[in-house]
Amino acid sequence: MKTSERLYNCIKEIWDSYNSHPFVKGISDGTLPIESFRFYMIQDHLYLMQYAKVFALGVIKAREEKYMRAFAKMIDEILNTENAVHQNYLRKLGISADDIKNAKMSLANESYTNYMISVGLKEGLAEIAVAVLACSWSYKLIGDFMKTIPGCENHEFYGYWIKSYSSAEYAESNDIIIDMVDSLTENYSEEELLNLEKIITVCSKYEYMFWDMSYKMEM
Amino acid sequence: MKTSERLYNCIKEIWDSYNSHPFVKGISDGTLPIESFRFYMIQDHLYLMQYAKVFALGVIKAREEKYMRAFAKMIDEILNTENAVHQNYLRKLGISADDIKNAKMSLANESYTNYMISVGLKEGLAEIAVAVLACSWSYKLIGDFMKTIPGCENHEFYGYWIKSYSSAEYAESNDIIIDMVDSLTENYSEEELLNLEKIITVCSKYEYMFWDMSYKMEM
Amino acid sequence: MKTSERLYNCIKEIWDSYNSHPFVKGISDGTLPIESFRFYMIQDHLYLMQYAKVFALGVIKAREEKYMRAFAKMIDEILNTENAVHQNYLRKLGISADDIKNAKMSLANESYTNYMISVGLKEGLAEIAVAVLACSWSYKLIGDFMKTIPGCENHEFYGYWIKSYSSAEYAESNDIIIDMVDSLTENYSEEELLNLEKIITVCSKYEYMFWDMSYKMEM
Amino acid sequence: MKTSERLYNCIKEIWDSYNSHPFVKGISDGTLPIESFRFYMIQDHLYLMQYAKVFALGVIKAREEKYMRAFAKMIDEILNTENAVHQNYLRKLGISADDIKNAKMSLANESYTNYMISVGLKEGLAEIAVAVLACSWSYKLIGDFMKTIPGCENHEFYGYWIKSYSSAEYAESNDIIIDMVDSLTENYSEEELLNLEKIITVCSKYEYMFWDMSYKMEM
Repeated sequence: MKTSERLYNCIKEIWDSYNSHPFVKGISDGTLPIESFRFYMIQDHLYLMQYAKVFALGVIKAREEKYMRAFAKMIDEILNTENAVHQNYLRKLGISADDIKNAKMSLANESYTNYMISVGLKEGLAEIAVAVLACSWSYKLIGDFMKTIPGCENHEFYGYWIKSYSSAEYAESNDIIIDMVDSLTENYSEEELLNLEKIITVCSKYEYMFWDMSYKMEM
Repeated sequence: MKTSERLYNCIKEIWDSYNSHPFVKGISDGTLPIESFRFYMIQDHLYLMQYAKVFALGVIKAREEKYMRAFAKMIDEILNTENAVHQNYLRKLGISADDIKNAKMSLANESYTNYMISVGLKEGLAEIAVAVLACSWSYKLIGDFMKTIPGCENHEFYGYWIKSYSSAEYAESNDIIIDMVDSLTENYSEEELLNLEKIITVCSKYEYMFWDMSYKMEM
Repeated sequence: MKTSERLYNCIKEIWDSYNSHPFVKGISDGTLPIESFRFYMIQDHLYLMQYAKVFALGVIKAREEKYMRAFAKMIDEILNTENAVHQNYLRKLGISADDIKNAKMSLANESYTNYMISVGLKEGLAEIAVAVLACSWSYKLIGDFMKTIPGCENHEFYGYWIKSYSSAEYAESNDIIIDMVDSLTENYSEEELLNLEKIITVCSKYEYMFWDMSYKMEM
Repeated sequence: MKTSERLYNCIKEIWDSYNSHPFVKGISDGTLPIESFRFYMIQDHLYLMQYAKVFALGVIKAREEKYMRAFAKMIDEILNTENAVHQNYLRKLGISADDIKNAKMSLANESYTNYMISVGLKEGLAEIAVAVLACSWSYKLIGDFMKTIPGCENHEFYGYWIKSYSSAEYAESNDIIIDMVDSLTENYSEEELLNLEKIITVCSKYEYMFWDMSYKMEM
């Protein structure tokens, strides 16, 4: 079994629970209060700035050029392309650069992002790739799931979010990380694989907390 | 005002709340269920292993020998002296080396310790010293507070814990960190001081979560 | 005086000496043996892969978004745009991806690049910006100098190299680093400035060694 | 074959060459000018401060307590026990704390120590252990070799140095690193082993440069 399949089996249940969380459901049926989404958008922006640092650790740990380039490309996507989703909503929601600058990270956000950065310092390249996967992959699955709901991606406000995470470009970028995990861990021992399971489980719990914190607008 | 005074004023309220938390109160009046303390002891052991890594980042970031030696001494104290407290209780509680090896970190513990490690990577020496201060200093204050309660430090089981954290040796070791913070930040700008306030506030919230997680034996 | 001016005064003499080094002179008058340039090109390629890691440390250490984006953009330029110069010459020189993969870094190259990476771990954002400046800025000055020599940038083989480093795009990218250094160090103490002088001096010596190693094709 | 044996075979020739270097020979036959030794002592002191940082990276990268404790103990030995050798000579040579504070690292010293620190950031625990081995193990072998030369360890000035590095305590401490390398790399692939060979070869070249720089008192 590929490592990615094993990891998926390990956190499938947690990831499935996202779809029934009121924040995620609220996006898909369009009932999510704008205030919660606004709170989320700001926290997610702060999240991405830290997320980029995790990929920067990937650039540092990579021994092969192809992995360096892959991580470098993702930093660029995080700070530019994916940020396009954010820029779009930040504008719509009237969130200014100053609002962002003055915004504070919630404790759940600090916990999640600094966990990934710390893993990035202590561990190796495959572990970094696994740490970023919980966010990357579960967003893809949420996007895919919403896409199957009739009318969902045409919602005038949330439709753009859904389209972004169910797009072919997003899937492709997520596949690069999955492939990286698989090829980097081909000869991993059971102990090393258990460590990867631990990392993706912790990150998946943080993902849930992130949805929850956003819904409750909890600092 | 010294930086340490400013930081203390900033988190005084959070630190005061520890003394009324049922876990801490349970140690001081001897009513804490042994099972909670056992859970705490294992988590605290895992905490110290990560805490030592934060001080190791201090050794790396220090430009002056005196700071290197101070951080190196603390690593040794964490892995040996302070560990004496732990070894004592681990033995009494019948916790074996294998129990430790198989123990998993709670999510609150992961959040707290990896936050400090991440700060240790991203920030400078004074920031590292401030990050470790929330634990070090608040334990001293808890120890001092309990010492004023008649009979408290003579409790047959919890007395040793109280004596350890209210000891002159522990206070001295904590003072070294406080002095380090003060001398390293003498010329800090308001912006840099606000950043230190943020770090100690986040760590102080994690400290509260740590007491709470221990009381509830929450993974 | 701006920090960048002070730093320039500090290493002006070393940088001036590059222009009279036989390797650099050989590029400007077209007499450099292709074999030396080939050796240089491979080593420079390996250099850039490590250089990108230094900028990745900039992404990690940056507290402000604008600096994160600046460093991220430079990583992209190193791995793509500037690499265009390399790709061009690698192709012309018949150097394959496998040649690169099997190539070993010379000791001077290891010393220079790992020095910058280590500074990037131990020190702060301004120190990182200064570490990368010795290469970035001195190449610009070499490019500018060669441009003043009649016929120089029209050389059929070396002209492209000269054009690249004397281009407006390259200058602009170098200016971003200089501006970063100046704005990040506005309130630096004399001690901190002396530390920056040390860093740029060490890197400037390594730059000289790099030219020398390339000329002598010394591993 | 154990990894340590393989690594030893790989750099045996370089290590053997140390014994015939005039600096090392000068210690063993007592002809080394005090001025060279004084220069060496100051550089070696600066070296050890950086060397301790490499071990601190070991504390950070270690997943198991036993390795954390081993690296922590070595940091303590470097800053205290081994430093005893230095303190002894620094005193005899009239080198004050201020002399040390004002001393600058030679370029060879910067190259060697920052290479190890950079490896410590980019690579894993076994790689760190291998990086520190070139110094640790080759000093032991030099000590052992000198011990076989009649009268050598009784030299009134250099005898103490020889005794220190041929002592049972020093050998024991070096053995811990060798054992760590062997147990951490049991399942290493050929590619990973080649990477270790590269690291120890680079460090061994730096060791030679260190002796040479000391002899020539070269900044």
